[in-house]
Amino acid sequence: MKWWGWGAEGTEFDIESKPELWPYMKKILGITEEPKIIPPVDLEQIALSEPNINPRFSEVVKSVLREDQVNTDKKDRIIHAYGKSFRDLWRIRRGIVDAAPDCVIYAETEDDVSSIVKAASEFNVIIIPFGGGSNIAGCLEAKGHNGRMVVSLDMKRMDKVLSVDDESCTARIQAGVMGPHMEEQLNAAGMTLGHFPDSFEYSSLGGWIATRSAGMQSDKYGKIEDMVLALRMVTPAGTIVTRTVPKSSNGVDINHICIGSEGILGVITEATMQVHRRPECRDFYGYLFPDFESGVKAVNMCVEKECPPMITRLSDPGKTALSFAYKTKSTGIKPFLSKLVKAYIKHVKRFDSDKLCLMIAAFEGDKKKFREHKKKVNAIYKKFGAINLGTDPGRSFERSKYDFPYLRDYAMERGIVADVSETTTVWSKLLPLYYATLESLEKAIKNTGNKPFLGCHISHTYHSGASLYFTFGFTETPGRELDEYLYVKKTVEDSFIKNGATLSHHHAVGYEHLPWLEEDISSTGVKAVKALKSGLDPNGVMNPGKIIPPKDPFSGWGLPEEKIKQFEQNNK
Amino acid sequence: MKWWGWGAEGTEFDIESKPELWPYMKKILGITEEPKIIPPVDLEQIALSEPNINPRFSEVVKSVLREDQVNTDKKDRIIHAYGKSFRDLWRIRRGIVDAAPDCVIYAETEDDVSSIVKAASEFNVIIIPFGGGSNIAGCLEAKGHNGRMVVSLDMKRMDKVLSVDDESCTARIQAGVMGPHMEEQLNAAGMTLGHFPDSFEYSSLGGWIATRSAGMQSDKYGKIEDMVLALRMVTPAGTIVTRTVPKSSNGVDINHICIGSEGILGVITEATMQVHRRPECRDFYGYLFPDFESGVKAVNMCVEKECPPMITRLSDPGKTALSFAYKTKSTGIKPFLSKLVKAYIKHVKRFDSDKLCLMIAAFEGDKKKFREHKKKVNAIYKKFGAINLGTDPGRSFERSKYDFPYLRDYAMERGIVADVSETTTVWSKLLPLYYATLESLEKAIKNTGNKPFLGCHISHTYHSGASLYFTFGFTETPGRELDEYLYVKKTVEDSFIKNGATLSHHHAVGYEHLPWLEEDISSTGVKAVKALKSGLDPNGVMNPGKIIPPKDPFSGWGLPEEKIKQFEQNNK
Repeated sequence: MKWWGWGAEGTEFDIESKPELWPYMKKILGITEEPKIIPPVDLEQIALSEPNINPRFSEVVKSVLREDQVNTDKKDRIIHAYGKSFRDLWRIRRGIVDAAPDCVIYAETEDDVSSIVKAASEFNVIIIPFGGGSNIAGCLEAKGHNGRMVVSLDMKRMDKVLSVDDESCTARIQAGVMGPHMEEQLNAAGMTLGHFPDSFEYSSLGGWIATRSAGMQSDKYGKIEDMVLALRMVTPAGTIVTRTVPKSSNGVDINHICIGSEGILGVITEATMQVHRRPECRDFYGYLFPDFESGVKAVNMCVEKECPPMITRLSDPGKTALSFAYKTKSTGIKPFLSKLVKAYIKHVKRFDSDKLCLMIAAFEGDKKKFREHKKKVNAIYKKFGAINLGTDPGRSFERSKYDFPYLRDYAMERGIVADVSETTTVWSKLLPLYYATLESLEKAIKNTGNKPFLGCHISHTYHSGASLYFTFGFTETPGRELDEYLYVKKTVEDSFIKNGATLSHHHAVGYEHLPWLEEDISSTGVKAVKALKSGLDPNGVMNPGKIIPPKDPFSGWGLPEEKIKQFEQNNK
Repeated sequence: MKWWGWGAEGTEFDIESKPELWPYMKKILGITEEPKIIPPVDLEQIALSEPNINPRFSEVVKSVLREDQVNTDKKDRIIHAYGKSFRDLWRIRRGIVDAAPDCVIYAETEDDVSSIVKAASEFNVIIIPFGGGSNIAGCLEAKGHNGRMVVSLDMKRMDKVLSVDDESCTARIQAGVMGPHMEEQLNAAGMTLGHFPDSFEYSSLGGWIATRSAGMQSDKYGKIEDMVLALRMVTPAGTIVTRTVPKSSNGVDINHICIGSEGILGVITEATMQVHRRPECRDFYGYLFPDFESGVKAVNMCVEKECPPMITRLSDPGKTALSFAYKTKSTGIKPFLSKLVKAYIKHVKRFDSDKLCLMIAAFEGDKKKFREHKKKVNAIYKKFGAINLGTDPGRSFERSKYDFPYLRDYAMERGIVADVSETTTVWSKLLPLYYATLESLEKAIKNTGNKPFLGCHISHTYHSGASLYFTFGFTETPGRELDEYLYVKKTVEDSFIKNGATLSHHHAVGYEHLPWLEEDISSTGVKAVKALKSGLDPNGVMNPGKIIPPKDPFSGWGLPEEKIKQFEQNNK
């Protein structure tokens, strides 16, 4: 993986094939001149402090691991210093690395993990579990080490599907496996986990579980927490082992103490997951709704009629316009909207082109089920005024579904902030939350003196509500780029909490969402997490500074009160 | 509620209407003479120690509550001394009450609960939260009070559905409401929770959540933990409050720290639950399978084809025979199996009558959905050799679905042990677990020198497995009744744990399942629960002696090692 951005070195965002995208971005962001490319610094320019090695801990490491399981190379330390949040990438591109781990350890067995965690607890060494390294909430940055050695415990070598129980549809899987390699192994046994987050290519099973991840097929397969039957987590107090049973009434659910623990209690080494036989048919479709409200009603009706598609992705007008600009060269591929369709939309259906909303829906199952399901959903969509665009926009979505982080890098290189914030709430609060957040976001970005791009989509639906996933962009003002970003980010999170939503639906807390945690789970809820921390990690060596907020919630978050005031005064 | 048995005083098991039941029971249990009725002792005969009143706690109580919220009457103390497990009822019927609460307090608001819990923690008074009082795992008996005052905190006056969000299908409900009263209030708003455990009439929302309860419609509506969106729990460390959102990624899931906590961390005062619009159609059907294995295959296939009925209840041959004996007088109601059907089963289908298995399946939804769903399931059942018996057996099941605890009392009155133990496991282990447990049970009951009744049913199904619910009965040997019961109970639980299942699917741990907890959730899992306890209830006043096992797991459980040996030697 690139140390300065998303994806493997050499893989870049293919803007060439999307000729309308960059002109559209420039227009919407008010960019008149071609911006100067801001390349990342040279690796050599980054100054890292010498690794701080704890000799007694190192002795243990040497006695239990092979040499090639331990790495103190600069590049490896830098790769493990951060996740891939906007803030992370913005800093790393500029060579700002305050706290790289002193050493990267590659665990190959649970015994390795146990030995390392035990020694770390004994000799007061920080352990930061590391999966795919793609977290965007600050889960991976060393915080509060206070002079202690910091170890990034990379799990990627524990990458096996250990066994598949075909009769029960379960699979025992090592936590370090990345999405594609896991699916490959499961597919070979005729199975799929059905978990495809946007970060799929660069995220691990353990990471998904530790952060309560959601994949784009969650409406059918559930969030990751719905798929875990059993797991093993090594903590400084011993190893938690739960049983492979579908459900239980054995007191407090121990799986749920590990799920979402973001590395602060221990290292998840494996899990037994519910898996599914691969479906016979599967396809993606596009629809156009006259406006966001109609789309939301249609999504809600699908849930009420108990027939949500396997994927529902309703874009608001802002996101829809971006999708249209995203279309690939028409060589060989039909554009989303033919002239004929456009005329029909405008003159026959009389849709307002500023309000148009694109819906992508996907279905799967055996032939009969697939057909029936699609038919039901089509009827509901039609009722709310949708036009069926067929498979082209759907398949285009499928091809580009992992693209966004590459586009973010492309934008960042050109001095553009592009980021996302997502949440969930109940149906009755969904549209009020949507409007309020859009309004706050627009105001905040204008307060920075910039022109906003704003978009939102719904991509996870539930009986009682749905997610909202906001995308925002603006050109940075040189000299105060990160302040602007943080100010806008704060605005979104404030709006989530103020409007009855949660701080994140599937991106975790890390330290970047810490200031909103107490309002989300209550101060006694925080005490419960602290209690678990004291009991399972009494010496406080596991990934400190995450999930448990400091007394002053914004201390260490990065945006002093006076800067917020500055931005707000600018507007007056 | 009766202090000596199940249900309201005056309500008895209606054996008259089931003329074949008692003769069948006598035959199967080897009872040749009509047994002597063993009535419960007179209430007056029960010796209770004087209430142990903590004066400083009482001062607070007097200052915050009305007089009629506090009760030290003997009968009320006795009603609150136990739940309704076999062991509880066996003792109470004989007047054995080791530790009745010193006082019963009726909370009417969350403020009441907060004041009581705070004062209890300050003045070292035990609080045992009390909902419907129908728990059968020993969750309600005072343990480890060590001379401290014990208060049963009865929640039944907090019985309101506070609000229904029709658009989101959520309802904010006070924790003390009993099943029927809650459904009445929800029904008035066109809604249902869809949670109907066997104890429905005498159990509360708070109790369901605290014990991870499952209702008979869980295949459609989920277990109780799947329905909780948000809750409030008063702990000695403060009140946990979570947000009403469908899902989140806000660290460790705080709802799941409260769900299943069985009163050891705090008192659940309300929850916001996912509710559903009441279905248009709904009906129950009966089927006969040639044997249990075919039935299991059919159940599994329904899950695999993603079409499990709203209720699936597959009885094994033992339980099927009991159901047949259960049929009501034929006046007005057709018997389950007409002579014609019997002949068809025997001569045309050539089913072995000793292997016959009754399946009850129920469907609901709008007319179309109802019809299509039934059709799909019928086709699957047919494939595995089932005969469709129509609605008669299904509706008979529906009428009698809350009967079993009354029958248990009827049996107990006649010197018969009748009890249940249930679990879940994955599909691949389901039949091995079934055979192994039946075998162990049979052997254990024979070791007591008695003739066993054994039956089992499946009533909750999942993608990866299903529940097994065992019913067993035998005549007690006077003088060692409870030892026999405990010996048999231990055998079942040992078999669950040995064969890869969990200690309970939906009956909780209490102290009656404590000896198997560590093997179920691992010793580090127990440490996690202890950590929560230390953090949220630092003075240890909340329902001690539950969920956290003692060092010697069988200490305090009631069956010394030498008695087990005695039973096992008897058999040689």
